Amino acid sequence: MPDITEIVDSYIAAWNETDPQRRRTLVERTFSADASYLDPLMSGQGVEGIDAMIATAQQQFPGYPFSLAAGPDAHHDRVRFSWSLALDGGEPVARGLDFALIAEDGRLRAVTGFLEGQ
Amino acid sequence: MPDITEIVDSYIAAWNETDPQRRRTLVERTFSADASYLDPLMSGQGVEGIDAMIATAQQQFPGYPFSLAAGPDAHHDRVRFSWSLALDGGEPVARGLDFALIAEDGRLRAVTGFLEGQ
Repeated sequence: MPDITEIVDSYIAAWNETDPQRRRTLVERTFSADASYLDPLMSGQGVEGIDAMIATAQQQFPGYPFSLAAGPDAHHDRVRFSWSLALDGGEPVARGLDFALIAEDGRLRAVTGFLEGQ
Repeated sequence: MPDITEIVDSYIAAWNETDPQRRRTLVERTFSADASYLDPLMSGQGVEGIDAMIATAQQQFPGYPFSLAAGPDAHHDRVRFSWSLALDGGEPVARGLDFALIAEDGRLRAVTGFLEGQ
């Protein structure tokens, strides 16, 4: 079973991967089959829905990589971590905090995103 | 239906209220009947369980009031907010971030607490 650091690394990698096949592999590695994602702007259901949502988001900020800014901080079946979206060495164009439930197999099953500075 | 700011104010007030009857009233106002609370150190189920958990916590830091440090930041049926535990004007002895689901009647139905600086 992957630990939560591996899963969150895989989550960030999925948001950064624009090759459809490799992204889909990362999404499957990160999210349980019944996973959901919800933030103020986007939502996705299941592996297919979340993959499609990420593909759409990537078109809005092409070339801006996500990186982990803090965490993961996990207890029981809960985790939070912070991320930023910035060109290398530049000011972030977006920052956020994600909260998720961890499924029994270690993958994420319900993710809520919050945006900083909104 | 109370808005989320009222509910989070009521949540903070419940943690600060040591009179058993008044605390119970605040807990009922804040949490739905099927609510749960889980942080790294404590857990409580339902209004009665959460009330008992808060009573226990109050004995550990008697006289230290909770206050809202940031938020609430809500979207859809999700909310997050930060709190601190400090004597008036003093350095916080604890700080945390809470995440919750909001029930249809506006009360909190699932709360996850995270502690800062752990």
